[in-house]
Amino acid sequence: MVKVERSGRVEPLDARVRRSRSAVLDTTAALMVERGFGGTTVDEISRRSGVAKTTIYRHWPTRADLLRDAGARLDTPLDTPDTGTVEGDLGALMKQLANALRSAQWPAVLPSVIDAAERDADIATLYSTLQRGFSAPFLEVLRRAAKRGELAKSSDPAVLVAVLTGALFYRRWFSREPITEAFVTKLVNLTLGR
Amino acid sequence: MVKVERSGRVEPLDARVRRSRSAVLDTTAALMVERGFGGTTVDEISRRSGVAKTTIYRHWPTRADLLRDAGARLDTPLDTPDTGTVEGDLGALMKQLANALRSAQWPAVLPSVIDAAERDADIATLYSTLQRGFSAPFLEVLRRAAKRGELAKSSDPAVLVAVLTGALFYRRWFSREPITEAFVTKLVNLTLGR
Repeated sequence: MVKVERSGRVEPLDARVRRSRSAVLDTTAALMVERGFGGTTVDEISRRSGVAKTTIYRHWPTRADLLRDAGARLDTPLDTPDTGTVEGDLGALMKQLANALRSAQWPAVLPSVIDAAERDADIATLYSTLQRGFSAPFLEVLRRAAKRGELAKSSDPAVLVAVLTGALFYRRWFSREPITEAFVTKLVNLTLGR
Repeated sequence: MVKVERSGRVEPLDARVRRSRSAVLDTTAALMVERGFGGTTVDEISRRSGVAKTTIYRHWPTRADLLRDAGARLDTPLDTPDTGTVEGDLGALMKQLANALRSAQWPAVLPSVIDAAERDADIATLYSTLQRGFSAPFLEVLRRAAKRGELAKSSDPAVLVAVLTGALFYRRWFSREPITEAFVTKLVNLTLGR
């Protein structure tokens, strides 16, 4: 992994730093999936990755910084579709989200992040940044729909996002019922008043 | 607390058992609010309540049994309203739930229960019992509404419960936006297609 630059200069230090950063992030992400946010301690990250705690804290001043960066590895960001109709766009977004809830790794971690946010203001701030990034594609799709006159005048985009994503989250984490294609279709129709 | 029965017989043992059970349940409930489900260990419950671990395990064979019983102390069960109309009933139910999400103690604990359910089949079973008890009033209100012909033929009660409660949960735990009266009214109207 030692990188030889074009000048022929060898940079073992840089490569070592990169490798240990990467080992720490991989270990942290794996621990988050296995034990949740609360169970992911810097002690255990250090033990498993073989990177000293002092080194870890040199790269990430707080545990929250490290968990945020590692969390980004578990993320499956939503694309913002542009199919030309609000049904098409919402259907495509909801399908992406439903797939992620079925198979991605972050749904196993998220409840522990939300639990930590109940108790820790730093984590709450970190979480609300994640949350905004994730509702943004929905708001964008609804903004375009409103511009095209596809939404009822009385409809409130913030309510529609809460309904669409809230109902999926409800099934994934609260009722643990299957998220079927029929369920998603019914949600989109209900939201659009069809 | 020593109970004197009509026969005049003193039963200090019974009273002591009752007192220590109660101390354990109070301590457990308080710890759950403070630290979440994961942070509520039998070691710490024993330390704080002054009740020996062997005694605790005599009353509750598993930690999940104890957490379930203690969790019942944090519960604010929903009444099933019967106002005569579906708007009235759903409005009353949603108001109760919104109030509980704002002020009850269980919303601070629930994400940690859901997190534990991701990792532990016993907790998942425990949680799904809680969940069914909690969606039951919604299903009952919708069943009556369907009987009175107040719902569209195509409407699916399971979808409506997911929308109504999912959107409230979304605001409480995911987006952390305020749950206003206007928000609740818009949800009920959207659900009923008005």
